[in-house]
Amino acid sequence: MAASHHDKPPPLDMSHHYSVITKRRQPSQIKQAYKFFQIPGILNIAGGLPNVEFFPFDTLEAQAAKPKRWTPSPNHPSEPAASASSSDPAAANHLAVPKTLHETDPLKKIDLSTALQYGLAQGYPPLYSWVRQFTRENLHPDTPYRDGPEVIMTCGATDGFAKTLSLFVDQWTEGVNDISERPGLLCEHFVYSNVLSQAQPFGVQVVPVKSDASGMAVKGRGGLEDVLANWDPSKGKRPNLMYTVTLGHNPTGIVLSVERKKEIYDVCSKFDVIIVEDEPYWYLQFPSAAVEEAKSHGQPLPPAPQSPTQPTPTRSSSGYPFLDSLTPSFLSLDTDGRVVRLDTFSKTVAPGCRLGWITAQPALIERYERITESTTQQPSGFVQGLISELVLSSSPQNQLARSTFSRLFLSSSSSSSTDSAKSFTGWDTSGFVRWLAGLRGSYERRMTRMCRILDHGSTLVSASALHPSSTSEWSPLAVSKTTLFSYSWPRGGMFIWLRAHLETHPLWLAPCPNPRFPVLNGPPLSAALMVWLTTKPFRVLVTTGSMFSANDEIRKEEGWKYYRICFAAEAEENVDRAAERFVQGVHEFWKVTDVRVVEKMLGELGASGEVRAVGEDVSRLGWYNMGC
Amino acid sequence: MAASHHDKPPPLDMSHHYSVITKRRQPSQIKQAYKFFQIPGILNIAGGLPNVEFFPFDTLEAQAAKPKRWTPSPNHPSEPAASASSSDPAAANHLAVPKTLHETDPLKKIDLSTALQYGLAQGYPPLYSWVRQFTRENLHPDTPYRDGPEVIMTCGATDGFAKTLSLFVDQWTEGVNDISERPGLLCEHFVYSNVLSQAQPFGVQVVPVKSDASGMAVKGRGGLEDVLANWDPSKGKRPNLMYTVTLGHNPTGIVLSVERKKEIYDVCSKFDVIIVEDEPYWYLQFPSAAVEEAKSHGQPLPPAPQSPTQPTPTRSSSGYPFLDSLTPSFLSLDTDGRVVRLDTFSKTVAPGCRLGWITAQPALIERYERITESTTQQPSGFVQGLISELVLSSSPQNQLARSTFSRLFLSSSSSSSTDSAKSFTGWDTSGFVRWLAGLRGSYERRMTRMCRILDHGSTLVSASALHPSSTSEWSPLAVSKTTLFSYSWPRGGMFIWLRAHLETHPLWLAPCPNPRFPVLNGPPLSAALMVWLTTKPFRVLVTTGSMFSANDEIRKEEGWKYYRICFAAEAEENVDRAAERFVQGVHEFWKVTDVRVVEKMLGELGASGEVRAVGEDVSRLGWYNMGC
Repeated sequence: MAASHHDKPPPLDMSHHYSVITKRRQPSQIKQAYKFFQIPGILNIAGGLPNVEFFPFDTLEAQAAKPKRWTPSPNHPSEPAASASSSDPAAANHLAVPKTLHETDPLKKIDLSTALQYGLAQGYPPLYSWVRQFTRENLHPDTPYRDGPEVIMTCGATDGFAKTLSLFVDQWTEGVNDISERPGLLCEHFVYSNVLSQAQPFGVQVVPVKSDASGMAVKGRGGLEDVLANWDPSKGKRPNLMYTVTLGHNPTGIVLSVERKKEIYDVCSKFDVIIVEDEPYWYLQFPSAAVEEAKSHGQPLPPAPQSPTQPTPTRSSSGYPFLDSLTPSFLSLDTDGRVVRLDTFSKTVAPGCRLGWITAQPALIERYERITESTTQQPSGFVQGLISELVLSSSPQNQLARSTFSRLFLSSSSSSSTDSAKSFTGWDTSGFVRWLAGLRGSYERRMTRMCRILDHGSTLVSASALHPSSTSEWSPLAVSKTTLFSYSWPRGGMFIWLRAHLETHPLWLAPCPNPRFPVLNGPPLSAALMVWLTTKPFRVLVTTGSMFSANDEIRKEEGWKYYRICFAAEAEENVDRAAERFVQGVHEFWKVTDVRVVEKMLGELGASGEVRAVGEDVSRLGWYNMGC
Repeated sequence: MAASHHDKPPPLDMSHHYSVITKRRQPSQIKQAYKFFQIPGILNIAGGLPNVEFFPFDTLEAQAAKPKRWTPSPNHPSEPAASASSSDPAAANHLAVPKTLHETDPLKKIDLSTALQYGLAQGYPPLYSWVRQFTRENLHPDTPYRDGPEVIMTCGATDGFAKTLSLFVDQWTEGVNDISERPGLLCEHFVYSNVLSQAQPFGVQVVPVKSDASGMAVKGRGGLEDVLANWDPSKGKRPNLMYTVTLGHNPTGIVLSVERKKEIYDVCSKFDVIIVEDEPYWYLQFPSAAVEEAKSHGQPLPPAPQSPTQPTPTRSSSGYPFLDSLTPSFLSLDTDGRVVRLDTFSKTVAPGCRLGWITAQPALIERYERITESTTQQPSGFVQGLISELVLSSSPQNQLARSTFSRLFLSSSSSSSTDSAKSFTGWDTSGFVRWLAGLRGSYERRMTRMCRILDHGSTLVSASALHPSSTSEWSPLAVSKTTLFSYSWPRGGMFIWLRAHLETHPLWLAPCPNPRFPVLNGPPLSAALMVWLTTKPFRVLVTTGSMFSANDEIRKEEGWKYYRICFAAEAEENVDRAAERFVQGVHEFWKVTDVRVVEKMLGELGASGEVRAVGEDVSRLGWYNMGC
């Protein structure tokens, strides 16, 4: 077990980072009201609430998967012998949230009279308390500051980041505010660009930090320490906010090691930077990726994956081997209390939940509560109620109440609910973790299948007769091998990040009659390939690196080299097909020798047609709502 | 029918009102992407979406009321003979949203593969299109500008107002920004105070406008015209934003007449003010209030209520007599396109929906879409999917698909869903309107019952023997009648707004030993009465006018006079009891002649204890989330 929370130092005061608006928000005095609300027998004609009897919903119900629907990865720690037999896609339970449950414990009272009424900004009590416990005891059992972090529910991670901007960033306008006050946001060169669209209207300066194969670089020119130590104040305020994805980075698929995290954290601590860790894919770490990649490449196998996070005398267990096997969060290093973590149910349940949570030191969470009261108030009770019912284990008392409810109140059209209510048990934390392990297994298998196909197609082998004029069948052949693209197998997340070697294309640097593209260098060739892949017979849509470039310079210099492929979105039967069509399309593109074909592709990209706009057109196509 | 939309002038350009942040938000270029998304047979490995098969929910279901569950008001236009027999509290349908519906029309495709996936900022297509049609054709058939208003779904009206602040208000800070730029917000003297808590952290100056018995005053000292025409620029920028509730005002219960709206609109047009109309109670207009009030007071009956909004040659019908009978929105007068209306499902379905919509001219809605993309993205698909299923009429095709789905995929625990799916039809617009009429009837009956009891108890009759020393049973009595409180019956909404005549209390202006309250004037007596009412045997909690006072001056001068009573929140069996206990408590309070009793009540309000803090303590108790 971890040392007692009280042996630890408290987190540092971060209030100097608050925006003016955040500082002005009044503290809540709701606790002073509780004594009135809670007077036994009081009739409350103060609050402007509609009565629950006027809600048209008498129940909310669902068919929901059992936790073992999907098969974990073969080396799933808690199920070493995991086999297909543990998977049963049809296995489901019937959930029912009744109108009114006669239960005095608000943490167990999951009913419509509470879930569909006005509620607290921190979240629906049963769900909030489950998330809080899961976060503090299972996900981050080792937070180094006293009493550990707090949580607040959000309407998903985008909402969480919007509130984070509201918490830390003051609006800045050129000509109105001094340049020395211009806020900055640190991020990698390639970044989930929706966060930049969120930040830039505030006048935020995006400050890209170089990465290497292991993620954001700390040392060296353009690394984090260089950027911060050599900051030029005439360009704005030294950035005090960092945005990053550490497990299954979007778009690069990198898993940041604990060692690298420690280096980054130390620099952030030195320069007083708040770290915003956005982890939609935190459970998608692929233990087999290194070995399978080596096999596919015919290289020597790396040492068996050694989890860096096995419980040790200095590290507590999460209680679940699966969670222990995941690289721990920045929160596990957060002695200062400068880490804000964004979690979401978008990838563990569904994006349409619009439900997630923020984890940070208590003083920051208190400010998030005030922001939430003035904006979203709370996530929808429809999703909070149904997710509560899904993840919480039914106590015997609740089960009894439910089945009584079912017998008494459910109409004949769902009379069978009585039985299902009797047999129902929620997932509980162990079921949720098992569900995650099943999803991880499913996504890892998809990733492996796609990468094998891509590896197989990454080179173009051309054979030409050494003596073309010879008619002899025995003429020797010259075999040339061209690398079309290269990449590392992703160690986590949902994406494969490919570098296309467009400089090996036959039309590379070819003169082009189009005055906008006098020469076919990287940007136009890259955009043309994206469009080419959508044409028959390839018909496959990928995103280009320009969409993820942190600024125009990176877009121009590096962005055109990359493509991002998502192995999560397509139907199961299309996973292999999509990779095959991609390979086929790239191969055929390298056979294009007519400049006019490339020109035609570029014409598909719309009126603006400028090279710079190629990236922008695509990056602002609204992919944000496609979950990029 | 209305004149063709194309005969009307277009709305004015309001972009000079946009905040700097709003101006900086980039236009969406998603339409340029559609051509790629919509290529037949394309495999989309671009977007970072999880596949629907990995969502643990196989269905979402609910038991939901039939539209006629509640009895309309007796004079409900479409049901003149409405009787108790039309009410059936148990009547319910079973709704089921299947995982994947094979339906090509996105407006009819209500399934989890769409509702629980990433979606568009404007809202879930089936619900968005229904709300848009309902808003444009039924609620506001007469919008005067060309092509009419657009809509966008929100996470409720608080979210809608937060986005409205983001759209129109620039952060202002004393000492940083010039006073001439300080933004202002016009509102009534008594106002739903959560909107002030939302606005003030931005540096917004709250600018109260006087009201009379008919609502916000236009003429006279302190009226709207006076405030704007005589604006002193040394106090800030002349306000360009107004917040108001026009139908069932919170807290005053006033319904603003069309005539008054026209006067207000003309002044707003003259001074270029954006009107934000927040209408959570828009369907709760009480046709019987004037007559029943006169009856209860023993006064001559007023003329039969003449709806100001019957269709005329110059006014289109909404298509529903119930909707025609409601006072029309500012939108119906909005020649300029300066009205932003906030709607919510909080009171028509349930507060926990966190679902509503904004209606305004198209250019404003486009900006709201950009704001939404960067904050909430979209309301939860759980509530959007289930509300779609509730309000949309099933097409025969959908019904067939549903019943096929049920037979094939629903597990035995809900096998009976097959039948319910076959018989299911959604409410459709007519059912939704009928549901609203039933709610209106229910709330109107509650209001009438409470007001009758309050009327009966509004005076204290004291009898004392003219000759107290006399022992004769025949001694004549002197009867004194003291008015304890007075009010108008609310013409709409959920609240009764009482003025307590504390100046008739025996301890009025009594000296008090507490140094903080040397004399028992309005504020301490008012606060003491609020606490007194929570004690045994009254045990009833009301809100004081200080909670709704637009600023400290109003709180001190007027706020203490008022109490707001909500007749919507309590259980049916407690409606009369709450009013009775309130009356009893007030009567007993007037019998208190010991200053120490009042002092003790004030002690319950906590440490701050200052008169000014009495209002603040209560106003910041977090009632916002009690739906105030």
